[in-house]
Amino acid sequence: MNQSLLSHERYMREAIQEAKIAQSYGEVPIGAVIVQDGAIIARGHNMREIWKDPTAHAELIAIREAARALGGWRLTGCTLYVTLEPCPMCAGSIVLSRVDEVIIGAMDAKGGAVGSVMNIVETDDFNHRPAVSTGVLAEECGILLKEFFRELRRKRTR
Amino acid sequence: MNQSLLSHERYMREAIQEAKIAQSYGEVPIGAVIVQDGAIIARGHNMREIWKDPTAHAELIAIREAARALGGWRLTGCTLYVTLEPCPMCAGSIVLSRVDEVIIGAMDAKGGAVGSVMNIVETDDFNHRPAVSTGVLAEECGILLKEFFRELRRKRTR
Repeated sequence: MNQSLLSHERYMREAIQEAKIAQSYGEVPIGAVIVQDGAIIARGHNMREIWKDPTAHAELIAIREAARALGGWRLTGCTLYVTLEPCPMCAGSIVLSRVDEVIIGAMDAKGGAVGSVMNIVETDDFNHRPAVSTGVLAEECGILLKEFFRELRRKRTR
Repeated sequence: MNQSLLSHERYMREAIQEAKIAQSYGEVPIGAVIVQDGAIIARGHNMREIWKDPTAHAELIAIREAARALGGWRLTGCTLYVTLEPCPMCAGSIVLSRVDEVIIGAMDAKGGAVGSVMNIVETDDFNHRPAVSTGVLAEECGILLKEFFRELRRKRTR
């Protein structure tokens, strides 16, 4: 296993921790962290239900926090780690924020906008194109979601 | 001119007022309002530079404000008016927020995600599909932007 993959897995574990925080609130377990020069400068987890905010996805929260941490809206030199393939809104915010790289855990066949349903990030249509890697700890990231929705269905059918 | 178009123009003028507020701060002049049952429940204008936030677009700000006003993340029964065709991030947030209808002023051939570069809103790929009308006060909406960028180039070449 090469150093880069080990490092990616290390930060994806931090994103998974964020997903678990969301889950502890009853939110869909999705988490993200943003790394610059080896340091985590921002964290985010899905907070849609509790914040009553349709835009409160893990990536958007982390991007806004990273911009605050850096004192500017350009996240140049940053890598975003997220446990699930971003939706169109989050994929769009990734392009707008100029992050260098996006590392994705599990793919989202039904709603993903980095290759599954559409691809907003890996296109020359917009004025920034981050590098993308997928499948980092995909199984762990995906199991969290599968178990969350299985539990939700179980509660609903009781 | 039918009643619906007159009403659309009335609210689009409010969105244009929001765009002019952005312009007064030196921000790219884009504005949005959200209407429910004939009342404006939220307003937003582009604040990217001043807030140092890559996600601080007019639509996203208005959507978050509307959710706060309604006390929930679902903007069912709402119409969003925006002076410029939404980018992918904002188009995605429109779908996520479940607004009923989107009324657009000018189109954005280079970055628009409601028909120009791609179409995130008028698709059955996602679990909500708002109605879309375009071209409401398009000239007024577009002139604001053209004059803003002309002035910007003039300042830069001085």
